[in-house]
Amino acid sequence: MSQGKLMPVEEALASLLAMADARQLDQSQELALDEARQRVLACDLVATLDLPPWPNSAMDGYALDLAHWDGQPLLVAQTVFAGRPGTPLQPGTCARIFTGAPVPAGADCVEMQENVELLDDGRVRFTQALKPGQNIRPQGQENRAGQVLLEAGTRLGPFELAVAAAQGCTRLPVVRKPRVALLSTGDELLEPGMALREGCIYNSNRTLLRHWLDALGCEVIDAGILPDQPQQTRLRLEQLQHGADLILTTGGVSAGDADCLGQVLRDSGRPLFWKLAIKPGKPLTVGYFGQVPVIGLPGNPASALVTFGLLARAYLLRIQGVGEVEPLGVMVPVAFDWARAGSRREYLRARLEQGQAVLYPNQSSGVLLGACWADGLVEIPEGRTLQAGDLARFIPFSELF
Amino acid sequence: MSQGKLMPVEEALASLLAMADARQLDQSQELALDEARQRVLACDLVATLDLPPWPNSAMDGYALDLAHWDGQPLLVAQTVFAGRPGTPLQPGTCARIFTGAPVPAGADCVEMQENVELLDDGRVRFTQALKPGQNIRPQGQENRAGQVLLEAGTRLGPFELAVAAAQGCTRLPVVRKPRVALLSTGDELLEPGMALREGCIYNSNRTLLRHWLDALGCEVIDAGILPDQPQQTRLRLEQLQHGADLILTTGGVSAGDADCLGQVLRDSGRPLFWKLAIKPGKPLTVGYFGQVPVIGLPGNPASALVTFGLLARAYLLRIQGVGEVEPLGVMVPVAFDWARAGSRREYLRARLEQGQAVLYPNQSSGVLLGACWADGLVEIPEGRTLQAGDLARFIPFSELF
Repeated sequence: MSQGKLMPVEEALASLLAMADARQLDQSQELALDEARQRVLACDLVATLDLPPWPNSAMDGYALDLAHWDGQPLLVAQTVFAGRPGTPLQPGTCARIFTGAPVPAGADCVEMQENVELLDDGRVRFTQALKPGQNIRPQGQENRAGQVLLEAGTRLGPFELAVAAAQGCTRLPVVRKPRVALLSTGDELLEPGMALREGCIYNSNRTLLRHWLDALGCEVIDAGILPDQPQQTRLRLEQLQHGADLILTTGGVSAGDADCLGQVLRDSGRPLFWKLAIKPGKPLTVGYFGQVPVIGLPGNPASALVTFGLLARAYLLRIQGVGEVEPLGVMVPVAFDWARAGSRREYLRARLEQGQAVLYPNQSSGVLLGACWADGLVEIPEGRTLQAGDLARFIPFSELF
Repeated sequence: MSQGKLMPVEEALASLLAMADARQLDQSQELALDEARQRVLACDLVATLDLPPWPNSAMDGYALDLAHWDGQPLLVAQTVFAGRPGTPLQPGTCARIFTGAPVPAGADCVEMQENVELLDDGRVRFTQALKPGQNIRPQGQENRAGQVLLEAGTRLGPFELAVAAAQGCTRLPVVRKPRVALLSTGDELLEPGMALREGCIYNSNRTLLRHWLDALGCEVIDAGILPDQPQQTRLRLEQLQHGADLILTTGGVSAGDADCLGQVLRDSGRPLFWKLAIKPGKPLTVGYFGQVPVIGLPGNPASALVTFGLLARAYLLRIQGVGEVEPLGVMVPVAFDWARAGSRREYLRARLEQGQAVLYPNQSSGVLLGACWADGLVEIPEGRTLQAGDLARFIPFSELF
């Protein structure tokens, strides 16, 4: 059986994103801010307010009209607290003012309280040089009404939701959740809680992906474990194709006789079999069953993790309209030598120690524990060797959620 | 009013963690794996199984007894599928075997199917040199029964939960949620949805912190907005002190006359006023009201964000038993000059572009929008200047959730 040419990771990602661009979810719903975290904004959030809505004091101090000031001590004619607007400044007076309080009309300068002298007659003397506008946060410093604050396609985290709250928003339009039918294939799989049988293992990919999908704003249709049986696989996919935006499977995607997902896609669907130039993760299957996209991840846990994190994740964010779906990564020095240039791009589970990437000792695709030990993935391009101290791209796991 | 000495960030963090160590939450609860994400493991997770539980094939191929092999073609006497154990190998035979299938007793080597020749008489000829153990994943390769897989204090994400599932676990003991009473102070604050009044602004910190606290596994007791009024502040803190593990406030912590939280803590509690050597965020208040710890964050959104992310977050993780509570960060070159050495450590909202940290143009502590634009914080130590290309620590926001 021929190995065939391996598809570079970028090419696979570009194809997946092209598929996703053609299948963007066009329904949205309005959610209360408290419910909208981890969802994707469906329309631009346009500011309805200048922020701050009025000039306010950045300090506890005294507000004066510097442009018309003669340099003499000023009478403190009012006190302006946050939330309680003062009255226009009268000539020859200043205002006691607190942080966040609106600067009264006529004032163009705030001096901090540490720099004034309180006179016995109730006036204040300014002891330092003053500049127009000092210690005043001008209206609209953060944004102007009409400005786009967050673009459609923005993932909503605490910061973005706070920006909406600052505009007085209580609800936001978000893209509906992608519905992902999740199924595992393999006669060797048992669900946790069942008694272990000889030759079997517990299904960990279901747990991995349920939680990850949830973090990416997806609704999981849990379709369980499928036996390695083409007829049943076909039947299950037929049931799932109506409700799902994506069928996501693990296992059953290598070329072996017992791998029937690929067989079913060959027979009944439109397969785009990809052997990826990626390690771990080579046997990824992408295709359609009827009209529904199918991503078949390898069954080995580290392979499922890497291919989900680098490829399926991008697909699921993109159908929600997210523009930037690739992790940034950073260049870090590696603490190891990498002597054998590979034909596949490798993603190694690694931890940062004193800023250097240190490898988990067992990089087998069957080993999941390394991902808990590690902080992220070190990327080693095809054909590259490395010496300790060389730079490589590091993708923190935290960027993949 | 004297500025007093500023406390270095490390010292503040060390004090907070010492407070947290003395107040670790000692109650736990058992949750189903599906409910346990973002919670903290209460006890070590000890493996009950070797993983894999039996030697299995890493390839589709043929299993043979290399130690007793005479180099001749072997009869294929059985086929071993994943999940369906075979029978012990008989002399002169080999087994057809698929990926993940248990290696039959007596076999010590698997040759991949691409490297064998199928003879007309049903035997297979091995055409390449063979090594003992090749393509076999030994029992216990990932872990041995009895081994600690995850330590108490581990935050549970998709990877950790999958490791538990792989052991057949269905439930995990997690530390109970910290109960955080969240309140905002300031007469200028309005909740989103209310009509804007002159001199007022919408409360965005409540939204910021609700979601962030949720992501850190906390239960939020939403205590609303408190007017700048010492008597009411005292009353509200008295009500809150019984149910809460932490009282978290925003605003009302600078030294101004209108800042009454500090005043109440001075009068009724045990304040540890800290002026931190941090920018934004100097006026952080930490203390106790009765027996309950209070962290008073500054009211400016960027200040609240930085002090919560770097200090309060660490406290809340530590009382749940998490050991490593500080973000790792990475050293990156900066794309800007930093000419004025400050007396406070600065945390600047920045984005990585071509691996370099680029600053958001407006670093005012009142501006929240920069945190949405940015990928994280660039840390500039006290007394440092930088030139473009110099390295500085970058803390991705994704590490702070």
